Amino acid sequence: MTLADLPTPCALLDEARLAHNINRMQQRLNALGVRLRPHVKTAKCIAVAQRQRAAGACGITVSTLKEAEQFFAAGFDDILYAVCIAPPKLAAARALRERGCRLVVVVDSVAAAAAITGSGHAFEVLIEIDSDGHRAGVLPESALLLDIGRTLHEGGALLRGVMTHAGASYECRTPEALQAMAEQERSRCVRAADRLRAAGLPCPVVSVGSTPTALSAVHLQGVTEVRAGVYVFQDLVMAGVGVASRDEMALSVLATVIGHQEDKGWVLVDAGWMAMSRDRGTHDHAVDWGYGAVCREDGTPLGDYLMSGANQEHGIVTRRDGVVAADLATQFPIGTRLRILPNHACATAAQFSQYEVLAIDGSVQAWPRFNGW
Amino acid sequence: MTLADLPTPCALLDEARLAHNINRMQQRLNALGVRLRPHVKTAKCIAVAQRQRAAGACGITVSTLKEAEQFFAAGFDDILYAVCIAPPKLAAARALRERGCRLVVVVDSVAAAAAITGSGHAFEVLIEIDSDGHRAGVLPESALLLDIGRTLHEGGALLRGVMTHAGASYECRTPEALQAMAEQERSRCVRAADRLRAAGLPCPVVSVGSTPTALSAVHLQGVTEVRAGVYVFQDLVMAGVGVASRDEMALSVLATVIGHQEDKGWVLVDAGWMAMSRDRGTHDHAVDWGYGAVCREDGTPLGDYLMSGANQEHGIVTRRDGVVAADLATQFPIGTRLRILPNHACATAAQFSQYEVLAIDGSVQAWPRFNGW
Repeated sequence: MTLADLPTPCALLDEARLAHNINRMQQRLNALGVRLRPHVKTAKCIAVAQRQRAAGACGITVSTLKEAEQFFAAGFDDILYAVCIAPPKLAAARALRERGCRLVVVVDSVAAAAAITGSGHAFEVLIEIDSDGHRAGVLPESALLLDIGRTLHEGGALLRGVMTHAGASYECRTPEALQAMAEQERSRCVRAADRLRAAGLPCPVVSVGSTPTALSAVHLQGVTEVRAGVYVFQDLVMAGVGVASRDEMALSVLATVIGHQEDKGWVLVDAGWMAMSRDRGTHDHAVDWGYGAVCREDGTPLGDYLMSGANQEHGIVTRRDGVVAADLATQFPIGTRLRILPNHACATAAQFSQYEVLAIDGSVQAWPRFNGW
Repeated sequence: MTLADLPTPCALLDEARLAHNINRMQQRLNALGVRLRPHVKTAKCIAVAQRQRAAGACGITVSTLKEAEQFFAAGFDDILYAVCIAPPKLAAARALRERGCRLVVVVDSVAAAAAITGSGHAFEVLIEIDSDGHRAGVLPESALLLDIGRTLHEGGALLRGVMTHAGASYECRTPEALQAMAEQERSRCVRAADRLRAAGLPCPVVSVGSTPTALSAVHLQGVTEVRAGVYVFQDLVMAGVGVASRDEMALSVLATVIGHQEDKGWVLVDAGWMAMSRDRGTHDHAVDWGYGAVCREDGTPLGDYLMSGANQEHGIVTRRDGVVAADLATQFPIGTRLRILPNHACATAAQFSQYEVLAIDGSVQAWPRFNGW
């Protein structure tokens, strides 16, 4: 198989860029003296995670129990399930642990902590810390932090520490803001760990991370591991945040031109929102890429062109400046193939069941991914 | 299986509402004297299409060749592939036809028409008409229409007629605007058919449709068939357009409460954008539902609550009025299950590999769906 053999739309993965991204993050965190626990929710692909492990990653992070089950079946046994667990999911989590998977779960409430201690199984647990007001977690200075810690520890659960995710880093736009957010994520999570320890509670693990903060932190004192996901593919959102360059974007959607509306300057392609996803993550960026940035089939960027609109199976490619090129149908004849770089690789990848992995020698092989719960 | 046994998140399908929606559309088009060719891209589910056929549907519409292949394998042999075909896909289309599938393809360019006539196979073809400036198609008054018709007919293809889709109907907000758009869709497509016939070209099929226009047309003179897709599930976008009521929405995502941020009035659930999709189709409606409208587990609407934010596996449920309820954790304790009605059923359904179909007697069975290309 080569690029020319691929039916469209498909999810094209540039193997050299993937390898670059994996090495870049691993080397950065090696230099900072912390472990990397990649978040496999981005790729949901065994072959990708194997490359992350080979580069030095220590365990994985998952966002669903299905990910835990699939990766455990593929030989990954050190897994952090980084979404606060709903009590009805404890039975499935316990079953994984009893099969030999070192699955660590997360809570941010006394209710969930009590469900864990009441389960009759000695779960390993992290407490989620809210370091940025973005989502879940308890505040590092809260009484609740110690209440949860005591509920777990005194109830027989294995309290392993704290974790946080500074999702607000996606709103940063300057290196200074990113460094400040990374320091906020680090310092608040370390503070929570210190408070647990001061209360006599165990806290060996201090886990932080997001791709923007992981690529921006100046130091990570007190942190034991970093989690990051989308760095493995990179995308237009990460470029807008300032932590990825165009030639680091490993994932694109290969599409074929199916028509034109020449009067309007539209090129229609066979990749719509079903292929790109509905993610419009750059909508509030300085450069809004619509549904994606357009490149030639060989990957050369066509800087003037973006996917400005999308229906389920139609993408509308136009010039950013609105100029209607007179020679559109000549420039992009029907059958022309284009690569579309996505806003958000996690969302776009999820629209596909496999990656078409393009090697440096031009050969292509399929790597399966999974979806669902 | 009953509702209580389902793991979350999952795609819940209310069988009675599904049956209502199928019957409503079929009876309406029966009364208007035209055939219904449902667009199966919404559900991508054999069991759903079988119910549409049993109610009187005549053939199906697909948006991908994979849909054509899957539905043909399940016994559907009258299929319109309603996206302008890319010439590289002709071989797969031909293979289906040679296996006995009456697959009709669509073009809107002389280049694609020439690729069809040059293929050596007598394809059946419709010409796509642009009735609303929304997407693909040729203008009904254009010289291009006749050029394409002659290229097909004189080149040995079987010109079957014209088709259009007034996607601009999604922008309508009043019955008057919807009726006017339905009449525009009808009259422009019929006009294109008349011009082909006046030029001595065959045009037995005049195919129009979208859910909003199909549910709004006053008459359909000159039309032979109507295509519509999302009516089968209905959703918040169709409600905002004015062609669906809340108790017609057959699809929802069942979710479990996993936490709270009480100070902010947030309830966190285990359905994020991976479950709901990134579709924000109501963002410019009079009522913006965020990522979805919240109901109790039994389907009772909680009118004050919507999913105002979403991460990959986290949904943030808040009150529309911004009031921070003092008793949030009591009102929605961890483990509480909620149904979230989606903005756009086509996009949300595509995040799942099966529907959990809830019958009137409370039993649940799984109906598989497929995704991908």
